[in-house]
Amino acid sequence: MTPAYKLTYFDRQGAAECIRFLFKYGGIDFEDIRITKEEWPALKHKTPFGHLPFLEHKGKIVTESVSICRYLGKIANLASNDDWENLEIDSIVDTIYDMRYQSIKVVRMEQDASRKKTMKEKSLNEIIPNYFTRLEAVVEKNNGYLALGRLTWADLYFVSMCPGFDYFAGGDVFEKYPNLKALRTKVEALSAIKEWIRVRPQSEY
Amino acid sequence: MTPAYKLTYFDRQGAAECIRFLFKYGGIDFEDIRITKEEWPALKHKTPFGHLPFLEHKGKIVTESVSICRYLGKIANLASNDDWENLEIDSIVDTIYDMRYQSIKVVRMEQDASRKKTMKEKSLNEIIPNYFTRLEAVVEKNNGYLALGRLTWADLYFVSMCPGFDYFAGGDVFEKYPNLKALRTKVEALSAIKEWIRVRPQSEY
Repeated sequence: MTPAYKLTYFDRQGAAECIRFLFKYGGIDFEDIRITKEEWPALKHKTPFGHLPFLEHKGKIVTESVSICRYLGKIANLASNDDWENLEIDSIVDTIYDMRYQSIKVVRMEQDASRKKTMKEKSLNEIIPNYFTRLEAVVEKNNGYLALGRLTWADLYFVSMCPGFDYFAGGDVFEKYPNLKALRTKVEALSAIKEWIRVRPQSEY
Repeated sequence: MTPAYKLTYFDRQGAAECIRFLFKYGGIDFEDIRITKEEWPALKHKTPFGHLPFLEHKGKIVTESVSICRYLGKIANLASNDDWENLEIDSIVDTIYDMRYQSIKVVRMEQDASRKKTMKEKSLNEIIPNYFTRLEAVVEKNNGYLALGRLTWADLYFVSMCPGFDYFAGGDVFEKYPNLKALRTKVEALSAIKEWIRVRPQSEY
């Protein structure tokens, strides 16, 4: 049977990896379509806002990875039935999204080599440590998780981003943050995630 | 009676205005705390991640304006009970968030005057028109709204951002987009929003 969900992204982890984590964790079948850079220009015009990833389901297409993760987080029982509790999850996820944008994405988009270097140093020495220190305290306070004192889709979102931070830093960026490191180990050891990491197409981040 | 919600932000519309819209639309009492730039450094360290706005409720503090809006959107009956429908709302809201970040926020953060000018031109001539053209088509297809063919919190979110786009463009940025313009007019004419706009503290955006 054709899967009910079709995910389209590049052949790497990036913004789609948490979506794949959630499909796997929830035991939901999906088609994992990976396009090449050469195929992208022709496809770009057909997407809602010119971005990847997008998800197709029942003839509809939606974009925005965090929104898609929230939807799958509910289906996979990694959200809450309480609105305020979902706000606590969302708030942490948006914080991580902002952190990644401010520290990694702005550096990637910068064309000027000298400015790129300065910005990267600021990311590694200021922006990331500032966020990580605060996130470390959140996890310590929350029974080893990012929200609600238990596993939620916020944890899968964070862990799916870890290889991107490692790659950006050129090493283990979590060394100084034992609670974040333990959270990563714990999520990567979940049986569905562990198996996915074992079989997924190889890419650095 | 002290309101159950306390919102803290600067004395302007910005990222907090949609939160205020939703409180007003939902008839929910809230304390609208507005701090000065002089007060901010002392407060910054006490916030979860060093950012405004934040919301206090029952002894808890949460940040991230979009997350807060989603929560209030549910309470104010401007969301859906269906997960996929909420994904459609979320997807449009995140698209608008990204658009604002890529077009306005990056320009504001740029220090170099010459680069700032080039980036602003790109925002006004490329990024904003590209998004607005696609959003215009979405509204046309959706019965005059951004999602689900009816009023949702995505519409209030978009309209709360409009003065920021006007200010950035130095004029009516919606002139070429009749469907977006009509949506703005319609939301600003909702009785609770109309009254709030009449009485709120004056600021350009």
